[in-house]
Amino acid sequence: MAIIGVLIDDMFEDVEYTSPVKAFEKTGHQIIHIGLKEGKTVRGKKTGTPVKIDKAVKNVSVNDIDALLIPGGCSPDHLRGYKEPVNFVKDYFQSGKPLFAICHAPQILITAQLLEGRRITGWRSIIQDIKNAGAEFVNQSVVEDDNIISSRGPRHIPLFTNACLERLELL
Amino acid sequence: MAIIGVLIDDMFEDVEYTSPVKAFEKTGHQIIHIGLKEGKTVRGKKTGTPVKIDKAVKNVSVNDIDALLIPGGCSPDHLRGYKEPVNFVKDYFQSGKPLFAICHAPQILITAQLLEGRRITGWRSIIQDIKNAGAEFVNQSVVEDDNIISSRGPRHIPLFTNACLERLELL
Repeated sequence: MAIIGVLIDDMFEDVEYTSPVKAFEKTGHQIIHIGLKEGKTVRGKKTGTPVKIDKAVKNVSVNDIDALLIPGGCSPDHLRGYKEPVNFVKDYFQSGKPLFAICHAPQILITAQLLEGRRITGWRSIIQDIKNAGAEFVNQSVVEDDNIISSRGPRHIPLFTNACLERLELL
Repeated sequence: MAIIGVLIDDMFEDVEYTSPVKAFEKTGHQIIHIGLKEGKTVRGKKTGTPVKIDKAVKNVSVNDIDALLIPGGCSPDHLRGYKEPVNFVKDYFQSGKPLFAICHAPQILITAQLLEGRRITGWRSIIQDIKNAGAEFVNQSVVEDDNIISSRGPRHIPLFTNACLERLELL
């Protein structure tokens, strides 16, 4: 079974965390919540879901996890305001391990300058940002491009979660 | 005295609305709140400041206002998910009238594809998006480039507000 890091901060889109994580745990995978400050409880923006940060991102190595989930909402934009999560995502990406990005998650990939030439989808408000980053925006529920599995938003969570679970089976 | 449109939606950064608007009104300027739905009350993200939308953006003409303020927070990202506010900002921009953009406000200017070759500042999380849009990111409290007056965020509101008031005096 895999160890899945969840990179998360306040005002994440609740269901983009709760739904995939529930499915991952049900399948036997282990979750590590990675954020800005160890022990802090961050909360979702719609229903206030509490998530306790297990490890500060500055203390996490790419070797500690087998896959990385980045939920959307305002969380990716908060995280990319700090250099530690941006550098972590950059290091993680180079490893080639699976990266699951939904909704606003591509924002931190843009700041980490990882999207040049990639095919990706995301929330409608960030389409121009994705294109300006040199990526091809693909208008699909789920897009798989090498190690990135991306999805547009809450409505597409079941398809996104299935694609993530299938990728985890290959590890 | 000028008529100032404020383009705003839920989860705006409270002080980026309350502080400049208070100064504008004190000086005798008139405010029109422009949003997605007329009559709706939108709220700030930190202290829940209520703002009643006076006019839906689809019913506003560029001729109705003399200047436009776009507060930050999550409001600009919400607004740019819809074509009406994006098209309005595009039309407004072409008029050459003053545009006051603080914090996350450049996000809607990016979606409207207005930043190519411009000098602008904004919140730290969107720096890469600003650069990818073809603009020069300027690390200053306030940046004036032709009709755009931009500012980094809450800490710079007094300087931003002064720059806006000075520009309004020239109208």
